[in-house]
Amino acid sequence: MASGGQSRILLFGAGSVGAIYLHLLSKVASTAAVCRSNYDVVKQHGFVINSTIFGHDIRFKPQVVRDCAEASSLSPAPYDYVVVCSKAIPGVVPKLIASAVTPGHTAIVLIQNGVGIEDEYRHAYPDNPIVSAVLYLPATQRPAGVITHAEVELLQLGAFPSSSSNTHAKKFADLVTSAGGTAELHDDIQYMRWSKLLVNASWNPTCALARSKDAHVLTASPEATEVLRAVMLEIRDIAAAYGHNFTRELVDVQLSRAQDRVPNNTGIQPSMLQDVLAGRRIEVEAIVGNPVRLAKEKGVPCVRLEMLYVLAKALDLQIERT
Amino acid sequence: MASGGQSRILLFGAGSVGAIYLHLLSKVASTAAVCRSNYDVVKQHGFVINSTIFGHDIRFKPQVVRDCAEASSLSPAPYDYVVVCSKAIPGVVPKLIASAVTPGHTAIVLIQNGVGIEDEYRHAYPDNPIVSAVLYLPATQRPAGVITHAEVELLQLGAFPSSSSNTHAKKFADLVTSAGGTAELHDDIQYMRWSKLLVNASWNPTCALARSKDAHVLTASPEATEVLRAVMLEIRDIAAAYGHNFTRELVDVQLSRAQDRVPNNTGIQPSMLQDVLAGRRIEVEAIVGNPVRLAKEKGVPCVRLEMLYVLAKALDLQIERT
Repeated sequence: MASGGQSRILLFGAGSVGAIYLHLLSKVASTAAVCRSNYDVVKQHGFVINSTIFGHDIRFKPQVVRDCAEASSLSPAPYDYVVVCSKAIPGVVPKLIASAVTPGHTAIVLIQNGVGIEDEYRHAYPDNPIVSAVLYLPATQRPAGVITHAEVELLQLGAFPSSSSNTHAKKFADLVTSAGGTAELHDDIQYMRWSKLLVNASWNPTCALARSKDAHVLTASPEATEVLRAVMLEIRDIAAAYGHNFTRELVDVQLSRAQDRVPNNTGIQPSMLQDVLAGRRIEVEAIVGNPVRLAKEKGVPCVRLEMLYVLAKALDLQIERT
Repeated sequence: MASGGQSRILLFGAGSVGAIYLHLLSKVASTAAVCRSNYDVVKQHGFVINSTIFGHDIRFKPQVVRDCAEASSLSPAPYDYVVVCSKAIPGVVPKLIASAVTPGHTAIVLIQNGVGIEDEYRHAYPDNPIVSAVLYLPATQRPAGVITHAEVELLQLGAFPSSSSNTHAKKFADLVTSAGGTAELHDDIQYMRWSKLLVNASWNPTCALARSKDAHVLTASPEATEVLRAVMLEIRDIAAAYGHNFTRELVDVQLSRAQDRVPNNTGIQPSMLQDVLAGRRIEVEAIVGNPVRLAKEKGVPCVRLEMLYVLAKALDLQIERT
């Protein structure tokens, strides 16, 4: 943190998640954001946020830049935090944030889905603190610059690896809390990652491949409910091999959330389905590929998850191709 | 067969397959065809066939009708054959052909993919001969009335059930052969159905879900080849439980056909992928659902095929919904 002054925070990726944290953190810190697809509209008009939690028609014009080089040229003082809110597509972001990361100083906060997503940052920045974060914040950006958010806002934070100091995770949690957000500090953030993965690695590829809401998948065939439960149990078994234990009851509770949507014929579109329908690439490696590889390393069977991976990976590359 | 005269044949479904057999059989029999989506254009302009086997720019104007009631009103004599060339969507066609089927006389020829597709016809027409047929004939219709066909033409025919008389299968095979087509008579046509299913039940849903050509699926992930082989081996195991034995070597040969397309980066789009891309419903029950249910009846494990079924069934219903 800049001595005596406000923390300096750069958000990388200003989609719906990035925009909401930009709005919050701007109240308590010096902020800027790297915008990509929405740069022009946000530069000119700023963001509009409609949230059932933070308020409607919130308009604000953040400091936005096209890339991290431009961000680092804004001021000679180093960034205290680079907060990565972009999608977890391997091999891309660590290079892109390089000019904003000061070795030994800048904490890298990864607000991303999946497991195993921290490794490439640890490899690229061996001397920087890494804060790993799991987010529950259903939000969409449509059109560019206009964010809709409802119901839930929770950021779970912890050090990466879990055995390292949580000083930076705690400081970042305090910033979020002081700005009016909800942040939880966890000694073992990887447990929380796997907990979210129970739902994400099962429902995300399933709905994206079937192009269907979760409730529609469940009602399409008599086999669907047990197959989804079996996928979740495979994920539970992989987590257990890495020391993260979930009960079968928790799996049933997670499955019941989708089952509860069946009678009303509502159903939700997980983010990967939204991405596929919009022609955007999907976070298949972070959410499905990494758990499959972690399963193999420990010899945990996961034939259903592997099937989902083979299908979703081909789908992702087809999206890239077209 | 009408005594002394030509056989009277009604083709139900005049897509690319129906059009080619209509063209052939018109040379040796009295034919008519029920056209649905392409009725207007075929009624007015007839068909154009471009085939590497039968010739290019073949133009012919068949007798077409809108439905079987119109077909049966054309003449008082009963149809000797109703040849079903439409997609195998359960619960639809048996009712639609009723007015063209004379009990105890008309042979019903099913030129359709999948397994277990004959049962609903046997149930609806207990006193009519059923001829079951497996077709290898890669053809497309685009635009309506214009058929493109290449490389292969082979119709495998047998009685249903295999233990019943093959008199009608033999007569129909003779008609096709005398018209210049290639027809094989099989004592156990179900074996041939399962043989084709090895490829169809694995590649069709896989490519449709991943929206990818077969070669692209294989190159998308290191796991893909073994997963596809495992799906094929599940299908082989189900077939074995019903007395149809295929060697592991045959599975490898079938898999190698797709592998051979990888170096040239060509790949094919199986029919189910073509259907999905065109927004048409897919033959998921005949090709995937029936084998999964047959597996359950015999207690044969098929978790990968079941996963494909759950996904493809939801996809099919989503296509119907939109």
